[in-house]
Amino acid sequence: MKKIYQGKTKDVFDLENGKYLLKFKDDVTGENGVFDPGANTVGLTMEGAGEAGLKLTKFFFEKINAQGIATHFVDADIANRTMTVLPATVFGEGVEVICRYRAVGSFLRRYGKYIKEGDSLNAYVEVTLKDDDRNDPLITDSALEMLGVMDKNEYKILEDMTKKIAKIVKDELAKKGLELYDIKFEFGRIGDDKHIALIDEISGGNMRAYKDGKYIEPLELERLMLE
Amino acid sequence: MKKIYQGKTKDVFDLENGKYLLKFKDDVTGENGVFDPGANTVGLTMEGAGEAGLKLTKFFFEKINAQGIATHFVDADIANRTMTVLPATVFGEGVEVICRYRAVGSFLRRYGKYIKEGDSLNAYVEVTLKDDDRNDPLITDSALEMLGVMDKNEYKILEDMTKKIAKIVKDELAKKGLELYDIKFEFGRIGDDKHIALIDEISGGNMRAYKDGKYIEPLELERLMLE
Repeated sequence: MKKIYQGKTKDVFDLENGKYLLKFKDDVTGENGVFDPGANTVGLTMEGAGEAGLKLTKFFFEKINAQGIATHFVDADIANRTMTVLPATVFGEGVEVICRYRAVGSFLRRYGKYIKEGDSLNAYVEVTLKDDDRNDPLITDSALEMLGVMDKNEYKILEDMTKKIAKIVKDELAKKGLELYDIKFEFGRIGDDKHIALIDEISGGNMRAYKDGKYIEPLELERLMLE
Repeated sequence: MKKIYQGKTKDVFDLENGKYLLKFKDDVTGENGVFDPGANTVGLTMEGAGEAGLKLTKFFFEKINAQGIATHFVDADIANRTMTVLPATVFGEGVEVICRYRAVGSFLRRYGKYIKEGDSLNAYVEVTLKDDDRNDPLITDSALEMLGVMDKNEYKILEDMTKKIAKIVKDELAKKGLELYDIKFEFGRIGDDKHIALIDEISGGNMRAYKDGKYIEPLELERLMLE
């Protein structure tokens, strides 16, 4: 197998059998040693972050697959920190789809004239371009279509899938007394029919979870979810 | 009559007869003495800018009214630099609606991974919140609805009106050998039926126009259009 991509938090290998292998690292995104799920830089290395991230990803992807929602997940090997997936092509050079239940992060920074920190948002979905140099700019469905990233029908599918998947995650967190504030997903097109599927991972680094109004760090979130 | 609002480029008075009076100033937006239609600060004062802006606004609003598109424009008094308008309530605390024919300005800064400066855009419409402190953030139709600024039907109307009005301006500029790259409008709700109408002004400060690939300053644009 050969390495085809080296990412911030994981590497990707071609298994040359029609599937890919993701290797989870112990690096997490953040700045100046402080974890930030919205950051574009690797801020720190946390012992055990890769394994915990993979375990949580396996946990959620199995639940999502079981609901009949398409993902790239095939199986996971926790001891080796690897996950086997179906190859996917991303939209344009990659987009992130965010689902928000409460106003925090970049949403609050943008729309603070109209809302206060922590205000409820009704599973609001928005899309940003993966573009470190431009700080992952927000983009509308019209602009995505005009720039050839996806058409409006695909945008509707993404929005719908995002709400369904976020609800699954939110409900699982609620079982442990945690509240999901926001979560970001990546999607790709899979197979000959190019159907839209959830890709990448779902771990503490992709979401903001709170317990009794207090933010829970990714490793602590993973511990609480998997214990 | 009493002053009810003091703006960056014009003041608003209540005529107490059901109409308002806008008084155009010679101040234009920009930074460090350089004109920038996207800037939130008054950068410089240009002798004659108020009168030229009002003349061009009268020119365009009369054409737009004549096409049966609702505006707040009633009439203009060039000598006194005033314009009589119907009172309007803005969306939320104000939005700007931008129509883009070529990639420049904030669009290029956001989406430069996918387009080059000056690339053609197909009358793409986007909405930003008027919020100087947050640098007029881009906002989607879904977020506008969630934040109570406007519903999705109003967004569709705004988008449609914007394309029609921008086309009128583009065609008028083309008659003078000028090419419209982008233009921003403001809209409000007018009358008992709260119908959506174009408000504010349409002058050099609201648009970017080019001649043979060279940007034309607002006062020069107004001179070329009105000569």
